Amino acid sequence: MERIESTKNVRIKNARKLHTRKGREKLGSFLIEGEHLVEEALNSNVIINEIYIEENFIIPSKWEIDNVQVYIVNEKIMKEICETETPQGVVAICELLGRKPLQLERNGKYLLIDQVQDPGNLGTMIRTADSVGLSGVILGHGTVDVYNSKVMRSTQGSLFHLPVIKGDLVEWVEKLKEAYIPIYGTALNEDAKAYKDVESQESFALLVGNEGSGLSNVLMHLTDENLYIPIYGQAESLNVSIAAGILLYHLRK
Amino acid sequence: MERIESTKNVRIKNARKLHTRKGREKLGSFLIEGEHLVEEALNSNVIINEIYIEENFIIPSKWEIDNVQVYIVNEKIMKEICETETPQGVVAICELLGRKPLQLERNGKYLLIDQVQDPGNLGTMIRTADSVGLSGVILGHGTVDVYNSKVMRSTQGSLFHLPVIKGDLVEWVEKLKEAYIPIYGTALNEDAKAYKDVESQESFALLVGNEGSGLSNVLMHLTDENLYIPIYGQAESLNVSIAAGILLYHLRK
Repeated sequence: MERIESTKNVRIKNARKLHTRKGREKLGSFLIEGEHLVEEALNSNVIINEIYIEENFIIPSKWEIDNVQVYIVNEKIMKEICETETPQGVVAICELLGRKPLQLERNGKYLLIDQVQDPGNLGTMIRTADSVGLSGVILGHGTVDVYNSKVMRSTQGSLFHLPVIKGDLVEWVEKLKEAYIPIYGTALNEDAKAYKDVESQESFALLVGNEGSGLSNVLMHLTDENLYIPIYGQAESLNVSIAAGILLYHLRK
Repeated sequence: MERIESTKNVRIKNARKLHTRKGREKLGSFLIEGEHLVEEALNSNVIINEIYIEENFIIPSKWEIDNVQVYIVNEKIMKEICETETPQGVVAICELLGRKPLQLERNGKYLLIDQVQDPGNLGTMIRTADSVGLSGVILGHGTVDVYNSKVMRSTQGSLFHLPVIKGDLVEWVEKLKEAYIPIYGTALNEDAKAYKDVESQESFALLVGNEGSGLSNVLMHLTDENLYIPIYGQAESLNVSIAAGILLYHLRK
């Protein structure tokens, strides 16, 4: 273990660059904070290149980090590296996940995300997708970067559990149709079908859209059916991650 | 309309005090940001005492604000008042909502929230409670302050649509029992009943708990039944607001 004393150290400077999408793409890596996320990464096939710990952080004995370079830093440097206001004493720098092509599975279940902007919403939907046992998540253009640290925190590690890829959603809808997987959109009005009138399915794809404007019209017209969740009170709509949760658990057999 | 030019103006100083729970309780008011929330407040029975607008903000003609004092401020002052990084040009200062005693209704539907810490989770649950048409939300001790600005933003105005009160959850469970309203807890393990095995109800109360530790044991033992949502993937659990959304929409007839 090596000790780093200066915030001007090139490693620390590089770590800070990972706070932006541009920096992550340039360096080909991303940063995760906190014991739980680092442990999830260690238990997955993610490649971890460096771990930074604060002086008082005790590395759990079960962590297999023989091949990882560990650096000890002081509180000030840890705060520089972290994006959270109260760092949890450990950070890992991982290689961006390999983009293996997603193969549609017979009886596969998929979530397609169109232009969702809020990192918490995206992260929470990936966590729900993992919980409900989906085969993969496809992020359309204009969706917030999955390596954003708020997204990572909200996933609670689920990003390491199932394929999450970027793609052109129109093209993916075509592939899903060719694979005979029924495609459901989400609509904000009662012209669509009430979701409880659709039975649960062995295989399906659900499309959800932007927080403000919902699913784009182009996609809405390509689905097999669009579903809506009734609003009984005075709210204008549900939060997109809540709607996704209700629909995914309803559609899942 | 009056113009305020200095960040040292006493009104601006007071507005900033509303960023903390202590300040809100001392001054008996809370602050909301953005056109949508202010409009929701104007359309409700909330008492708005002051509105602050930035120079270029155009007050919608439908806003009935004859009885509200409006102040014009510059960008710098608006940033002082707001907690968001990108203020939306309008802020309102409202009186804390009156705490009318909540009367349990025949066929009422309730959400009881035990020690939820994350403002986004609380706000989103209030929005979902509104969407699904609940009769009221009861916040137990140790739950984040509902007037926290992040909570307010996540509610999207739903706080103004249904009663949201603070209370002792053990006492409320007793009252619900006396009113013959079935009470469901949420459990994180499979010893509980799978939620799909419970039929939807005319009337119910759902108890949800802390993000990390779930519902407290004391409450768990007072419910009529505890429900769990199956995890099919590798996630440890669902986000609490997602779980609440799935269960509320399932329980609702």
